[in-house]
Amino acid sequence: MALRRPLSRLLRSTLSSCQPNRSHSVAILGAPFSKGQKRRGVEHGPKAIRDAGVVERLSNLDYPVHDFGDLSFQHVEKDEPFMHVPFPRTVGRASKLVSGAVSSAVGGGHTSVMLGGDHSLAIGSVEGHAQQCPDLCLIWVDAHADVNTPLTSPSGNLHGQSVAFLLRELQDKMPKVPGFSWMKPFLGARDLVYIGLRDVDPGEHIILKTLGIQYFSMRDIDRMGIQRVMEVTLDHLLARKQRPIHLSFDIDAFDPSLAPATGTPVNGGLTYREGIYITEEIHNTGLLSAMDLVEVNPTLGTTPEAVEATASLAVDVIASALGQTREGAHVAFQKIPESKEDTELRL
Amino acid sequence: MALRRPLSRLLRSTLSSCQPNRSHSVAILGAPFSKGQKRRGVEHGPKAIRDAGVVERLSNLDYPVHDFGDLSFQHVEKDEPFMHVPFPRTVGRASKLVSGAVSSAVGGGHTSVMLGGDHSLAIGSVEGHAQQCPDLCLIWVDAHADVNTPLTSPSGNLHGQSVAFLLRELQDKMPKVPGFSWMKPFLGARDLVYIGLRDVDPGEHIILKTLGIQYFSMRDIDRMGIQRVMEVTLDHLLARKQRPIHLSFDIDAFDPSLAPATGTPVNGGLTYREGIYITEEIHNTGLLSAMDLVEVNPTLGTTPEAVEATASLAVDVIASALGQTREGAHVAFQKIPESKEDTELRL
Amino acid sequence: MALRRPLSRLLRSTLSSCQPNRSHSVAILGAPFSKGQKRRGVEHGPKAIRDAGVVERLSNLDYPVHDFGDLSFQHVEKDEPFMHVPFPRTVGRASKLVSGAVSSAVGGGHTSVMLGGDHSLAIGSVEGHAQQCPDLCLIWVDAHADVNTPLTSPSGNLHGQSVAFLLRELQDKMPKVPGFSWMKPFLGARDLVYIGLRDVDPGEHIILKTLGIQYFSMRDIDRMGIQRVMEVTLDHLLARKQRPIHLSFDIDAFDPSLAPATGTPVNGGLTYREGIYITEEIHNTGLLSAMDLVEVNPTLGTTPEAVEATASLAVDVIASALGQTREGAHVAFQKIPESKEDTELRL
Repeated sequence: MALRRPLSRLLRSTLSSCQPNRSHSVAILGAPFSKGQKRRGVEHGPKAIRDAGVVERLSNLDYPVHDFGDLSFQHVEKDEPFMHVPFPRTVGRASKLVSGAVSSAVGGGHTSVMLGGDHSLAIGSVEGHAQQCPDLCLIWVDAHADVNTPLTSPSGNLHGQSVAFLLRELQDKMPKVPGFSWMKPFLGARDLVYIGLRDVDPGEHIILKTLGIQYFSMRDIDRMGIQRVMEVTLDHLLARKQRPIHLSFDIDAFDPSLAPATGTPVNGGLTYREGIYITEEIHNTGLLSAMDLVEVNPTLGTTPEAVEATASLAVDVIASALGQTREGAHVAFQKIPESKEDTELRL
Repeated sequence: MALRRPLSRLLRSTLSSCQPNRSHSVAILGAPFSKGQKRRGVEHGPKAIRDAGVVERLSNLDYPVHDFGDLSFQHVEKDEPFMHVPFPRTVGRASKLVSGAVSSAVGGGHTSVMLGGDHSLAIGSVEGHAQQCPDLCLIWVDAHADVNTPLTSPSGNLHGQSVAFLLRELQDKMPKVPGFSWMKPFLGARDLVYIGLRDVDPGEHIILKTLGIQYFSMRDIDRMGIQRVMEVTLDHLLARKQRPIHLSFDIDAFDPSLAPATGTPVNGGLTYREGIYITEEIHNTGLLSAMDLVEVNPTLGTTPEAVEATASLAVDVIASALGQTREGAHVAFQKIPESKEDTELRL
Repeated sequence: MALRRPLSRLLRSTLSSCQPNRSHSVAILGAPFSKGQKRRGVEHGPKAIRDAGVVERLSNLDYPVHDFGDLSFQHVEKDEPFMHVPFPRTVGRASKLVSGAVSSAVGGGHTSVMLGGDHSLAIGSVEGHAQQCPDLCLIWVDAHADVNTPLTSPSGNLHGQSVAFLLRELQDKMPKVPGFSWMKPFLGARDLVYIGLRDVDPGEHIILKTLGIQYFSMRDIDRMGIQRVMEVTLDHLLARKQRPIHLSFDIDAFDPSLAPATGTPVNGGLTYREGIYITEEIHNTGLLSAMDLVEVNPTLGTTPEAVEATASLAVDVIASALGQTREGAHVAFQKIPESKEDTELRL
């Protein structure tokens, strides 16, 4: 009996950095990094998303917002390709830097919002989150599964292999990629759900099927509707126990007509409303603990409007994941004001 | 017994101007008015909608169409703001003018189609309709709830407060706005349904919740689907009794990609097909008695095509509400023609 | 008893050219023809679809692809209008040419892919297919029903009358159109389903209703959802027996925002995802035996991008009908590769 107290206190303190709630603060981490793929420009994503007003929008939701600025990435000299994988050590080092930053943010009681940069950054973001919250689950919203190994990847790009670095079940299928010796895979295949897939490589398909990973392609969304997809997603991840959610959102999950300024657009993506519905449902669990918003590439929009639309969409996704609603909210009012005094009371 | 007859005759005569049927004629009333908000240009809405061919389209549906031209609005001199509400007396006088015109149109046996102008005009349009049909119900299709009182409105604009002037339940929450002494609130909170909301102010939210108003935000449409939303809407309004419908349609209910030429666009709106489905379902009740089509602002489109698309969409909404179908109709044919004579018969 | 064998062998041999399977080869037939309607340019459709990469895309699906090039159409001299129907003999001769080519392709064991050209070409395509597979069924994806007779057609254009030439039940309603004496109607009204209708002429409506043809307008898709529409479609056509499918796909079934380069666009069409879902479901039956992709008109796009988008959409439709998936496939892999050897094995 005597032992119980300190243990439960320990548990409670571990939970405290992992159990988000609505009065939480938000940490914004910029990650201007692009070496997980070959098109330059995605390193300007954090600036574009900030320029579209992410800090103001979150502040309007009554969150204390801490913008920790941009992480400072360094290119590793003599970073020879591993097999056909370019920049392995540079990406590995960047991931480690992100991991530390996200771990600090979550450990410090913040909901972490990482602004990419390319999707290879999620290796570090999920890893850092897991340092604080080992039982996290992962929702990956993307046109692509990003679960190639160096042995299956058609392009070699690491932004298409992020999830393979995370999954325990792929441990003995992954060669030792230089730059990643600092981390071990930690995520179970049952702790991951994909939403929005529509361009899955053959090697990825055999991995998804062999590991029995739950995924919802755009065809599944067409068949089931997004509300049922979210029901099954949250049931799959949370029915056994409530636990922290990591949301890794690639802007290319949206249809290219909505998010044109990105590196690997694929037709037939999410509508605006489907994307917002996904984040609303995640917010409503009260369990979102960290998120990534990646692959906004301002140099790829054909017009300034295309870039603004893409960055503004990223802000909408983040704000919705953190509690902005479409049906309204009345925090400021306890009742319908009947006189000037009622109104002044709230101002 | 003897008394019954005159009473029933009276009832029947009241109903006659309120019970629309398909052989009805249509009255078009232009309302080039913009003082319910601060952006100029929406007073050119009626011309844009006429130029897009509204009269021809309704004539094709075999309606006698009476275009009564534009109402002539006057600016009230010395119209000082009330609290932070601009142009109260000008808007009040405009509403009264619209009220009289709509009352005459409905009383004259027409289905009234009011072309705005801004959405403050609906105060007069619904009020005039209610003079003829006191038991009407109201379907408000809009991105916004337009139910602020002067005490809750962030902007002060009256086009965001129209519904507050109509609702009996808000009577003691509304200050005496100059210009509106001619009217009294007459609509019950149960007699109103909103569709399309996605930008609801905090004060509006407390009103919607306190009064228990039935509303469907875009999130609700995402969850339920538009066909279920219409089922619940019509059941809510008509299950107890069949009665005249007033449809007040703000073009900003549509997604900004479809209706860019409007003053307060909000992302994530109705699709073309959802908008048309709403109006088809309303038409199919046989109970539409008056409608508003408001907030087309031709000066806000960035290209002539954007303006034409918005105005043409307005025409499609009106035509669909009045019986244009997507599955076809064969009024002109009794049977499949077998010879030239059959064909000539119908020409 | 003795007679059974040769008969069953005959049946089997008939079936062999009609029972498609996934290892099938594909025959591409270009049909640069535009005399079924009045706007020039649709004869460049086959080139636009080829330029958008149709052969490469189908080859990636591991099909042997045989591109038989373009059919060579000739204008008939002295081709006076019949009633108000222009070019009857020219269209009749073109149909006969297409019929022979499609019959040869299907008879030769190919899945026939006819690239239009206007939709009058489907008369010949379905007729030629039916020569090989008399029990085929027809799925017509289109904004229009194309089932006018010369006696009901408002325009006279034959691309709006194709289905009327096919239907047995209309035999005694069709005048003898010059140029079509070579063929007889062969399709039963129960063997046809329409998807995507939203602009149905009065004469077409009486035909659809009198003959009890199963059709799904855009309103039906809004009500039921595309997944239920496909369930009912395939059940209607295949529940009694499995049989070859002819898919006749008019690009104007899509919304004009997706397929602008076409002659008779109508607002409120299929989304990209609905169009692809239709073709995926048809592919999944394993019964697709011939298809048409018509009405891509490269001269009608207002920009080069509009033309490319339309042609590229046509390629997506064809590839999806022939097995391209959104959820992925792993033909190339038997298992997750664990070493370089595994990978090299498959290359």
